Amino acid sequence: MRPSGRTVSQIRPVTITRNFTCHAEGSVLIEFGNTKVLCNATVEEGVPRFMKGQGKGWVTAEYSMLPRSTHTRSQREAARGKQGGRTLEIQRLIARSLRAAVDLKLLGENTIILDCDVIQADGGTRTASITGACVALVDAINHMRGKGLIKTNPLKHMIAAISVGIYQGTPVADLEYLEDSEAETDMNIVMAEDGRLIEVQGTAEEAPFSFDEMQEMLELSKHALRELFDAQKAALN
Amino acid sequence: MRPSGRTVSQIRPVTITRNFTCHAEGSVLIEFGNTKVLCNATVEEGVPRFMKGQGKGWVTAEYSMLPRSTHTRSQREAARGKQGGRTLEIQRLIARSLRAAVDLKLLGENTIILDCDVIQADGGTRTASITGACVALVDAINHMRGKGLIKTNPLKHMIAAISVGIYQGTPVADLEYLEDSEAETDMNIVMAEDGRLIEVQGTAEEAPFSFDEMQEMLELSKHALRELFDAQKAALN
Amino acid sequence: MRPSGRTVSQIRPVTITRNFTCHAEGSVLIEFGNTKVLCNATVEEGVPRFMKGQGKGWVTAEYSMLPRSTHTRSQREAARGKQGGRTLEIQRLIARSLRAAVDLKLLGENTIILDCDVIQADGGTRTASITGACVALVDAINHMRGKGLIKTNPLKHMIAAISVGIYQGTPVADLEYLEDSEAETDMNIVMAEDGRLIEVQGTAEEAPFSFDEMQEMLELSKHALRELFDAQKAALN
Amino acid sequence: MRPSGRTVSQIRPVTITRNFTCHAEGSVLIEFGNTKVLCNATVEEGVPRFMKGQGKGWVTAEYSMLPRSTHTRSQREAARGKQGGRTLEIQRLIARSLRAAVDLKLLGENTIILDCDVIQADGGTRTASITGACVALVDAINHMRGKGLIKTNPLKHMIAAISVGIYQGTPVADLEYLEDSEAETDMNIVMAEDGRLIEVQGTAEEAPFSFDEMQEMLELSKHALRELFDAQKAALN
Amino acid sequence: MRPSGRTVSQIRPVTITRNFTCHAEGSVLIEFGNTKVLCNATVEEGVPRFMKGQGKGWVTAEYSMLPRSTHTRSQREAARGKQGGRTLEIQRLIARSLRAAVDLKLLGENTIILDCDVIQADGGTRTASITGACVALVDAINHMRGKGLIKTNPLKHMIAAISVGIYQGTPVADLEYLEDSEAETDMNIVMAEDGRLIEVQGTAEEAPFSFDEMQEMLELSKHALRELFDAQKAALN
Amino acid sequence: MRPSGRTVSQIRPVTITRNFTCHAEGSVLIEFGNTKVLCNATVEEGVPRFMKGQGKGWVTAEYSMLPRSTHTRSQREAARGKQGGRTLEIQRLIARSLRAAVDLKLLGENTIILDCDVIQADGGTRTASITGACVALVDAINHMRGKGLIKTNPLKHMIAAISVGIYQGTPVADLEYLEDSEAETDMNIVMAEDGRLIEVQGTAEEAPFSFDEMQEMLELSKHALRELFDAQKAALN
Repeated sequence: MRPSGRTVSQIRPVTITRNFTCHAEGSVLIEFGNTKVLCNATVEEGVPRFMKGQGKGWVTAEYSMLPRSTHTRSQREAARGKQGGRTLEIQRLIARSLRAAVDLKLLGENTIILDCDVIQADGGTRTASITGACVALVDAINHMRGKGLIKTNPLKHMIAAISVGIYQGTPVADLEYLEDSEAETDMNIVMAEDGRLIEVQGTAEEAPFSFDEMQEMLELSKHALRELFDAQKAALN
Repeated sequence: MRPSGRTVSQIRPVTITRNFTCHAEGSVLIEFGNTKVLCNATVEEGVPRFMKGQGKGWVTAEYSMLPRSTHTRSQREAARGKQGGRTLEIQRLIARSLRAAVDLKLLGENTIILDCDVIQADGGTRTASITGACVALVDAINHMRGKGLIKTNPLKHMIAAISVGIYQGTPVADLEYLEDSEAETDMNIVMAEDGRLIEVQGTAEEAPFSFDEMQEMLELSKHALRELFDAQKAALN
Repeated sequence: MRPSGRTVSQIRPVTITRNFTCHAEGSVLIEFGNTKVLCNATVEEGVPRFMKGQGKGWVTAEYSMLPRSTHTRSQREAARGKQGGRTLEIQRLIARSLRAAVDLKLLGENTIILDCDVIQADGGTRTASITGACVALVDAINHMRGKGLIKTNPLKHMIAAISVGIYQGTPVADLEYLEDSEAETDMNIVMAEDGRLIEVQGTAEEAPFSFDEMQEMLELSKHALRELFDAQKAALN
Repeated sequence: MRPSGRTVSQIRPVTITRNFTCHAEGSVLIEFGNTKVLCNATVEEGVPRFMKGQGKGWVTAEYSMLPRSTHTRSQREAARGKQGGRTLEIQRLIARSLRAAVDLKLLGENTIILDCDVIQADGGTRTASITGACVALVDAINHMRGKGLIKTNPLKHMIAAISVGIYQGTPVADLEYLEDSEAETDMNIVMAEDGRLIEVQGTAEEAPFSFDEMQEMLELSKHALRELFDAQKAALN
Repeated sequence: MRPSGRTVSQIRPVTITRNFTCHAEGSVLIEFGNTKVLCNATVEEGVPRFMKGQGKGWVTAEYSMLPRSTHTRSQREAARGKQGGRTLEIQRLIARSLRAAVDLKLLGENTIILDCDVIQADGGTRTASITGACVALVDAINHMRGKGLIKTNPLKHMIAAISVGIYQGTPVADLEYLEDSEAETDMNIVMAEDGRLIEVQGTAEEAPFSFDEMQEMLELSKHALRELFDAQKAALN
Repeated sequence: MRPSGRTVSQIRPVTITRNFTCHAEGSVLIEFGNTKVLCNATVEEGVPRFMKGQGKGWVTAEYSMLPRSTHTRSQREAARGKQGGRTLEIQRLIARSLRAAVDLKLLGENTIILDCDVIQADGGTRTASITGACVALVDAINHMRGKGLIKTNPLKHMIAAISVGIYQGTPVADLEYLEDSEAETDMNIVMAEDGRLIEVQGTAEEAPFSFDEMQEMLELSKHALRELFDAQKAALN
């Protein structure tokens, strides 16, 4: 039934490549099938002004799609002079999610910036960004520990994210673009590795969804997220 | 336990005043306790460029907080030269939600714009905006029908929205600012009057939340949303 | 002769509601007939950079019209990415006028910001803004004195403002939109309560005006401004 | 008493140089003492969108100060990314004033743009701009007539502008910077050559001014404006 | 002498990977040692407004560095709200250069956009961009021919670009970042495959350079550019 | 052969007027025939943030064309809200070139800003800007020395710039607009008075150029630049 022939719970092949670029303190290329996102983590001393003097660190994120990461070219946001609403919405989600993975007090007055740049898009770029950024975050933290910038590991738990949705009446996991563009409902789920939820965003695209359908989608996500946590761990070893 | 002495499921007094201003095709002041949002609906002929030639209409929304709607003054976005990420995220949510209430084909090539301006904020401004904007939308639709711009009512169902959250370990409905700023989890739920979901957005603010807690919050919202649908109906009669 | 049946010198009913919102240090809704402006005064410690170190305070203002405060919707300036020339011109006028009411030395290094947001427009929004903002300013000053931020009252005198113009060849006071849009000449007059002038701005819209006509308009304004000073006083008692 | 030794009614030497640059349809350098403004008039076919289809023309203006036209360098507005409030206020004044000189119906669907760029500033740049722009406007109109773009002269009357103010308690005409920066009151008057008023803008800088003082300033302006109309005529012959 | 041990005329290993992403009509990853640039070519029907109606096509380019393509993170231009001067200067150079490779008349009223996004920077990003973009351009042209959008090949000749400079007193080819940041002179040369020049930009960074030194640098570039033309050809076969 | 009847090596009459305006520390109007650029030098204490604490000064530049300096009016960049790519490219060239004339260490922590505003354009505005700005720079340096801000003259050498190009197959010097708009190749050369090169920028407009043609253009520039150095010296004596 699915365009790719996948089963409803089957996610696409996930590849996580660390040290993809050489300058960043953490640099991860994450691939969910044809979706490819470069997640670079930067460590900067100091915190933004609104955080100063609290003895705490900060984790933030920026998201962008290369103009031709999509079927038709989208205008470059730098040329347009501002980031679009979708971009801001997504990077706020990524930042909130990653902050939930870190004990900001243990980070000291340092900032970690996660740049998620979509090289190629085929659905699920925001959830791939979160999943890949968490690996880059770990590398950045290890870099900080190696340099003696922090003593205690501020990572509270790994996080990962997956999209689920209702496609042709059936809940499916990890929608690719063809499914996503026709899905009745679209839901993004960010989970901590202990199984608790960080963020749930479900949107009725074509038709409202019932509490039961929501339940089914949540269930479906659990298995997929397990696989993602395994892929993260494998990459980090 | 709650600062206001409300029970966990008790929402604040809701007041819906139609025709609050005289120029808009729909003009609603909605109050959830101290939260006051002016929702003006504007009918314009034609649709945005990306919708042209499809014989369908469009529903969109804009959201803003007056600079001193909050405890401390926030900078005016027009003076700053751009809308912030939170503003864009909220107005995208309002627009998506209201579009889910309308059959765009029956709207013809017309646009309805919902301007939600927060006069006074005390938590729950986005859910109040959605709930109030739906009433303004109905007035705008009636205006269009009165003028013969459309023949068939394009409203598919009323929608309403409520915030629920976990405050001091307990799920509560309709958080006011004091609760919201300390909540462990914050969830906004947009529902159609038939009980199905339009949008669910849950965020772990302090700590991840379990699937069970999410279930409890969803349950809590059902009752609150019933009251809101009643308040909308009373206002429209 | 006037659309409303008013006499040439008759101003519209003026209502001044204090404490219209709950967070601002001064919050006034002023109504001139159908024109309704919310004037919020905010007290902030410190002064803008160009005023630092002079031991003096600052008074400034911002003005905005809600998109649907007018007959047809105007684009939201925050969405457009900048404030228009008319907005800047008006808020500069409001700020200059209110600064003329305050002894900045007695204000200490504090700033008072007057946010004038037009809820509904029917002509005369800038003069209503000035008249209402002066009441909000008094409330903000009283708040500062109550908190011990300042010892001596920095208010030099109340100020108020009115529009006069030549409509169908005759000078009239307090033009509503129908008159304003057809007036030959439009003049805004800001006065101190001792009868001296703070600002006079007269513009030939359709035809130049003579020195005598200007004289007549100035005379007409005196009576109207007296009524406004009385309304301010009544509101403040 | 005046820094320059001028009498209260004495204006600075005024020089009007036509054809100052070679490309514009009208190009005037106007000098009021050390104040030097280049006023270029451009004729463009067509009108802005909001004027289309009315069979009428449009007259507009832009104003700018070169960064080092003043004692200390001011930031270039193009580099800052927006025109300041003062700039917009002044160019709106120039445009309104010049529009009052032209019968837009006789202009046909053409636009005249008046660019007023301050080369050197010493007070009175906005009034010099208006006075010089009117000469450039005449040259542009003559250019149009020469080219057969219009048949009837759309000029209704010449206009000119002067600043007057109260300096050390005494009304004086044509304030230079040293006076302007200390003036108690500052007033700009735009007049048609028949002696009627186009625009009057009086501002209390240090202290409110009485109706009598306003009267004195208006009187003072009449003589100065006569001289300006003479200078314009001399330049055009 | 060179940090890498290269001879003065030796360029870094060059790798050209076609079809690096799947959506663009031409997609090339070009690597000059550690410098990696993704060059995507997009074909769009139609031309920009200023080119309409001439029966000719258009070739343009955009350039960007990912925030963490460099040693320290640079601010994202989309977040800053505008493209910097260096970015604009480089993308104008890329566009001019590529336009010199195409007969715009044979392109018909179509536009080819070359997006050059630097994934990793180690000196010479603009010359790598030009060299890689020319290969992507060829793929885009072949795509157009395959689709029947154009009949005749509009490519006039391949172009390639190299940086040369004076490092520690000696002219060297293909400077990497360590050399570039200390070079006395920096020169970028864009050449057509017939050996003629498209663009020469030489800049004295530390000290002026003589006509003889310029001559030496030009000579040095010839050999390097030959290698690049060979690499392009190899990639295209 | 040339529209002006000039020989291939003949430059237009060059006029350099110092003290053109009265406020700037250096103010030069430079004319190359009909091209007229006002170059104002401003001295400011302190340096930009990225230069702080190095004990060195900074030299920067800004460039602009008055909207009607050209045949048809170009939009004012301040009104458009940003500087165009051409403007940024040119002002970066001017700034780099002038920095090459100054020993920044001897300048102390001071900044010199060179504002080059084109009053009238007829080709060669960037090279005229550089040549004129160097004279204004000398005046600003002399001002600093007169005020005791610096003790040693930080000027390393005068610099001047000229455009050369290939027009109708023949290399010519100092192209005016008519030639420039049709030139096959356009080259700008910035030279120090000792004959060494500061910047060389050659662009193939219509057709690639050979190494020999480049050589010819470089030769042609030498004579022209000699004349410019003489004109600078004459102006400074």
